[in-house]
Amino acid sequence: MIVSPQSMSFSRPLALRSGASIRDYALAYETYGTLNADRSNAVLVCHALNASHHVAGVYAGKPDSQGWWDTMIGPGKPVDTDRFFVIGVNNLGSCFGSTGPMHVNPDTGKVYGADFPVMTVEDWVDAQARLLDGLGIGTLAAVMGGSLGGMQALSWTLQYPQRVRHGVVIASAPNLTAENIAFNEVARRAIVTDPDFHGGHFYEHGVVPKRGLRIARMIGHITYLSDDVMNEKFGRQLRDGIAPKYSTQEIEFQIESYLRYQGDKFSEYFDANTYLLITRALDYFDPALDYDGSLARALARASARFLLVSFTTDWRFAPRRSRELVKALLDNRRDVSYAEIDAPHGHDAFLLEDPRYLGTVRSYFERIAAEAVR
Amino acid sequence: MIVSPQSMSFSRPLALRSGASIRDYALAYETYGTLNADRSNAVLVCHALNASHHVAGVYAGKPDSQGWWDTMIGPGKPVDTDRFFVIGVNNLGSCFGSTGPMHVNPDTGKVYGADFPVMTVEDWVDAQARLLDGLGIGTLAAVMGGSLGGMQALSWTLQYPQRVRHGVVIASAPNLTAENIAFNEVARRAIVTDPDFHGGHFYEHGVVPKRGLRIARMIGHITYLSDDVMNEKFGRQLRDGIAPKYSTQEIEFQIESYLRYQGDKFSEYFDANTYLLITRALDYFDPALDYDGSLARALARASARFLLVSFTTDWRFAPRRSRELVKALLDNRRDVSYAEIDAPHGHDAFLLEDPRYLGTVRSYFERIAAEAVR
Repeated sequence: MIVSPQSMSFSRPLALRSGASIRDYALAYETYGTLNADRSNAVLVCHALNASHHVAGVYAGKPDSQGWWDTMIGPGKPVDTDRFFVIGVNNLGSCFGSTGPMHVNPDTGKVYGADFPVMTVEDWVDAQARLLDGLGIGTLAAVMGGSLGGMQALSWTLQYPQRVRHGVVIASAPNLTAENIAFNEVARRAIVTDPDFHGGHFYEHGVVPKRGLRIARMIGHITYLSDDVMNEKFGRQLRDGIAPKYSTQEIEFQIESYLRYQGDKFSEYFDANTYLLITRALDYFDPALDYDGSLARALARASARFLLVSFTTDWRFAPRRSRELVKALLDNRRDVSYAEIDAPHGHDAFLLEDPRYLGTVRSYFERIAAEAVR
Repeated sequence: MIVSPQSMSFSRPLALRSGASIRDYALAYETYGTLNADRSNAVLVCHALNASHHVAGVYAGKPDSQGWWDTMIGPGKPVDTDRFFVIGVNNLGSCFGSTGPMHVNPDTGKVYGADFPVMTVEDWVDAQARLLDGLGIGTLAAVMGGSLGGMQALSWTLQYPQRVRHGVVIASAPNLTAENIAFNEVARRAIVTDPDFHGGHFYEHGVVPKRGLRIARMIGHITYLSDDVMNEKFGRQLRDGIAPKYSTQEIEFQIESYLRYQGDKFSEYFDANTYLLITRALDYFDPALDYDGSLARALARASARFLLVSFTTDWRFAPRRSRELVKALLDNRRDVSYAEIDAPHGHDAFLLEDPRYLGTVRSYFERIAAEAVR
């Protein structure tokens, strides 16, 4: 499937949860498949931290440019683009095409940098709703996402209950635990205290806080994988031969080599201010907050039907967090399907090719297709 | 109990596992209680990452200077200094009194810095054995430690089986998992890539890589605590009032405030090169390596009796790692007592006052006293 990115511009200000607003912004997006005559087969895919609107397919002439959820979405795939019209959108504040901290603030004529407004999951959903308006789509057959993308999918069912028939929430949670916030905070501190960060205005200094970004990514990677899969893939293997070099700074173990590589790669393309913004959106998400902490009351607004999926070895968004969501939806007598997939890969499992996982999503979308696509 | 630190100097070179050696070094140590006539009541306490020879008691005129295991060791305490002669020793390469990276290398006349030789658990045990020689102690009633200290206690029973009657190994493991090494590596990278690290020779520049030390400590703290205890102590509480400030750099959540405080405090007193050395010693420890990975064969040398203790919510040194040790000792028909304590505090539990935990150690030492102290 050959795809190409598109962009939609919005001049009217978007009011944000922080009290600020943003105007003259653009959203990068892609679409796959064809919108049917009654516009009933649209599926919106929301992305997590390190992803974009490029969800599926490849760009012309770039056979290695598969979208981040290409195992899930495409012709004949679990979310079948022969039946569904799928939309991927890059979130505001991200660094892959939509307006973000590296762009010019129309109010000042200068690059936003650290002054880009703080975004919440709810703000992203509002921006996505405007994109759907622009595309002429009233109601979504489904909104789906994993991790932070799952939070957006959930929030869609709360903010625009009449516009969502199905919410597909994968490897997600009703909010972050203190430990989750803690990992985000360490990553942010690594970036912010990098001398090349310059208070978030590093663009004008012609530098990038790569040291901090590397550390942030290394921490992230550890928490995306399970202890088991790390032991299986790397264990205690030395990188060079069988005798240790006895060095505190050189690479000794394979796992170190892997993490440094991931950190280096990430620091080459990811924007530091975007990292701060996206982890903060994760921290803030907490729909129960306005309901005295009652998730059941918070989810009462939702009228969609739901598929929730979690993975047994995911300790970042553990199955018990998905079960909290299932419980709160059932307390509201909502229609919920829930699959807890026995997978060794930790949080990363939601991006991987696991037959039981993909089969579960396929079955669910076949059910949606049967009712929605005429 | 008023205590005072002592020091013993060693001129003869100590051969290290790396192939290097170290000479003209000193070990800081403390002793509590009285060595009995037949020198049979000595207990050596080995320390973990952020601790020292100051295990118990307080310094004269400093009522708040309790040793790091003061709940465990002292008159009438589980390890009763009315019965036992307890020795605490600061490891080589540490920063609390024994020779370390901040001292002068006798071979060059310059501060060691990053050139301080890489230490292993086995090297520390060899150095501790020399200290015992100097104190005129042939055989230990017990050697004990938690975490990295537990690794040293275990290694004692393998390197000097005839000199140890009991090994007390708490919240420890036969080696680090890939995930453990990964966390150590991120912490090390944060330190090494801090511009103030200067390749480990920051002393001569009059600076300290505090940014890196802060990040290292924050990561450490997250892994010392359990998810449960973090949620209980901090949860999602905001630091100031009930409304978020919507900021990526300011402190929003209590957990952030706690971690930043811990990081700041640590960076004021802990040596960066010591941090690298100690985490590397953790990484390298793997007694089964020379036995084709067979822990049972590796532990065949041990002739001591053992008490092992683990804590249910410790995910850094999980109970299953202690059970591997128990299994390998039982395979060798060794005398092993094992307690898995149901405690909410994660790895930190080994330093805390838990009646079941302290009661277990007390009972075990009463048994040792009954046989050893005449």
